[in-house]
Amino acid sequence: MALLVNKSRQFLYQPFTLKPPQILALLFLILIIVGAVLLKLPIAHEKTISWIDAFFIATSASTVTGLVTVDPGTTFTLFGEIVILFLIQVGGLGVMSFASLIVIMLGKKISIKQRMLMQEALNQPSLGGVIRLVRNLFLFSISIQIIAISVLSIRWVPDMGLSKGIYYSVFHVISAYNNAGFSLWSDGLIRYVGDPTVNLVITWLIITGGIGFTVLIDLWVSKTWKELTLHSKVMIISTFVINILAILLVYLFEFNNPKTLGMLSGGEKLWAAYFQGISPRTAGFNSIDMTAIQPDTALLMTLLMFVGAGSASTGGGIKLTTFVVILFTVLTFIKGKDETVVLKRTIRNAIIFRALAITMISLMVVFIALFILTYVQKGDSFMVILFEVVSAFGTVGLSMGLSPHLMLISKIVIMAVMIFGKLGPLTLLFSLAAPKKDNIRYPDGEVLTG
Amino acid sequence: MALLVNKSRQFLYQPFTLKPPQILALLFLILIIVGAVLLKLPIAHEKTISWIDAFFIATSASTVTGLVTVDPGTTFTLFGEIVILFLIQVGGLGVMSFASLIVIMLGKKISIKQRMLMQEALNQPSLGGVIRLVRNLFLFSISIQIIAISVLSIRWVPDMGLSKGIYYSVFHVISAYNNAGFSLWSDGLIRYVGDPTVNLVITWLIITGGIGFTVLIDLWVSKTWKELTLHSKVMIISTFVINILAILLVYLFEFNNPKTLGMLSGGEKLWAAYFQGISPRTAGFNSIDMTAIQPDTALLMTLLMFVGAGSASTGGGIKLTTFVVILFTVLTFIKGKDETVVLKRTIRNAIIFRALAITMISLMVVFIALFILTYVQKGDSFMVILFEVVSAFGTVGLSMGLSPHLMLISKIVIMAVMIFGKLGPLTLLFSLAAPKKDNIRYPDGEVLTG
Ligand SMILES: [K+]
Ligand SMILES: [K+]
Repeated sequence: MALLVNKSRQFLYQPFTLKPPQILALLFLILIIVGAVLLKLPIAHEKTISWIDAFFIATSASTVTGLVTVDPGTTFTLFGEIVILFLIQVGGLGVMSFASLIVIMLGKKISIKQRMLMQEALNQPSLGGVIRLVRNLFLFSISIQIIAISVLSIRWVPDMGLSKGIYYSVFHVISAYNNAGFSLWSDGLIRYVGDPTVNLVITWLIITGGIGFTVLIDLWVSKTWKELTLHSKVMIISTFVINILAILLVYLFEFNNPKTLGMLSGGEKLWAAYFQGISPRTAGFNSIDMTAIQPDTALLMTLLMFVGAGSASTGGGIKLTTFVVILFTVLTFIKGKDETVVLKRTIRNAIIFRALAITMISLMVVFIALFILTYVQKGDSFMVILFEVVSAFGTVGLSMGLSPHLMLISKIVIMAVMIFGKLGPLTLLFSLAAPKKDNIRYPDGEVLTG
Repeated sequence: MALLVNKSRQFLYQPFTLKPPQILALLFLILIIVGAVLLKLPIAHEKTISWIDAFFIATSASTVTGLVTVDPGTTFTLFGEIVILFLIQVGGLGVMSFASLIVIMLGKKISIKQRMLMQEALNQPSLGGVIRLVRNLFLFSISIQIIAISVLSIRWVPDMGLSKGIYYSVFHVISAYNNAGFSLWSDGLIRYVGDPTVNLVITWLIITGGIGFTVLIDLWVSKTWKELTLHSKVMIISTFVINILAILLVYLFEFNNPKTLGMLSGGEKLWAAYFQGISPRTAGFNSIDMTAIQPDTALLMTLLMFVGAGSASTGGGIKLTTFVVILFTVLTFIKGKDETVVLKRTIRNAIIFRALAITMISLMVVFIALFILTYVQKGDSFMVILFEVVSAFGTVGLSMGLSPHLMLISKIVIMAVMIFGKLGPLTLLFSLAAPKKDNIRYPDGEVLTG
């Protein structure tokens, strides 16, 4: 088994002398180029599509973002849509498994203690389990998706007929599990705003795909709450807390907005707030009109989009644990304490440092993009531009209406931000995961950030 | 001398058993309350003024911000204006000397090595120089102000007559040196947009007051560039670089804007860009119409306002060195290096950590304020709200027009943000300056952040 790991590491390190994140970036660029070329083929689209839009859609699909400069449902043929679906599945699952792989492989490079923590984080009996891990990830993901497709089909086949009902179920399940947010309806899921089945299935997929594979393994292996790693506990609690808070705030902010929740019945209001509270981190589906939301809702969603989902998940953003670590560190400073303590475990300085670094670098990328877009998109309001840029960074895909009239330069910038949003934090995690100078203290808890 | 220091420390520590930042906050609140009561006196104002506006103006003056909910020039009598001037001078110089004091006193509490660095940073022969330092600070500040008042009077007395010319010179010099940005003209310094004397005197005061007292002492004592501390070198170079960049970008962004630079002559355009490039960190004077600036200029200024001036200066913001440390740390990560190196000196992790913490806490405060204001100020654009909040945080005082129609809750929030902006980073500097766990490595350079 150790031999197998060495072989796989040799494969990754030697032929190109590239580091894993560089290989990932290279594979990703190839995926985008292949996708764009396929989407540009005459059989892929019903309306004509420019090269820049083909690249934009390919980038958006591969990074599982969901921002679209053209309406996928009416622009592409079935073939084009399947290309998009393929890009989503490969981009989403591919990065997720690569991230899980990197987390384990790091165990070989760094200290014994950290390796133990990595193993603990994954609850893997040995490092030889790399291949098995990726296999499990795929098996698990496909199983989840098949179950969800079955349930959604039961809902949609009676409405749309057998083939269309199943096809729409397949498309939206893959899109939701990978947190891609692509929809075949140009107005998203607005027509199902009050539908319990659609709401529950989609949000369940979003959360499962977005919580991170290490957490899912941990949940599978552990028998009690106490057996879970700190990372899993933090992810589960913070996912719960942030979702509840977001749902309440969306409900409060939009309750009287006649263009969103205001026009809905009491039950629909709850479902809409439920859905739009969960979706911005980082699924990007919408069941209300995003161009009509209030400024405070827009600001809330901007924060949620920036925070994002879990490490080693299909989601983006700085990651929820990164946010939690920063939040607790700030509270620690304010209270005048020395050590950041989360769930009775001390968070090492190296982890805090990494969280702060990932956040700062992400902020800088967002800021540079904002700068270019405010310069280029002169007629558009700052809020709408900010929303679009953070949506791209968090690979969310929600838009307050800017995407269709992005200028050429803006499209290129948004594409770059989407790619950074997908690969940047992971690359930083890789390069920051093994700090050279670090005081070893006990007892410490491992929390993944980035 | 050592006895003297002990006595001053006893005075600060024992009678109230409060820490220096708490004493500072208490004195500050008293200053604001006294100021508000004085401004509310019938002899202080020509127009009626509400309690909230009296408190707002007192807070804005004491924190040397310059945001105004009423027009000072037409609202207050001469007595009222002198109250404002008093609050600016006490608030500005008071906090600056307190900050310098804290920096030195920290030398007693922390390790020998750090004490040496503090002494080095101040180029003081011994810690007994505390009282002398503060005396020097006041003497230096008053001298600078008297020189500037003389020069401005030569410019303004012929225009306005003797008493008004001198009075206007005194007011604007005190306001500029303390980076307060209060002006007796309701449109600021727009009428002097192309005036070399006014431009040069005001910007010279802004930079002198804003670079930090430790840098000024260092410049006074050092004979060569090499003798300067790392902190001084970084402050001087970065002040120069950021001002040049800001001037160029303002010139570029506003060149064709008919409401700002577009209507000016070639020479005036340069002066206007020069002035508005320097002023946002954190003087807050304006020589162009701030309600008419382009969105990209607004974003640039938002960044400049957030960054702010030097540590232990009259300016606000996270501080320029904090920004430089973060920028270099980010570049270090991107280059895959381990250690942040600035001017061939390694920046210790504790300093980087402090810079990141101050920035994150400041961002959170700005974000919370933004949240409340977007909720309360429904009709106002997000950019205008963002600009106002960051202006308050950076104690800048530039406004895109929101100040006069702030709702009651918004006024309270902006006041709280101004007070945080003035005292927050300093308090954090104090509580973070002595990290308990820190690897000691050589050679290190000391950079003040916050
Ligand atoms: K998405
Ligand atoms: K100011």
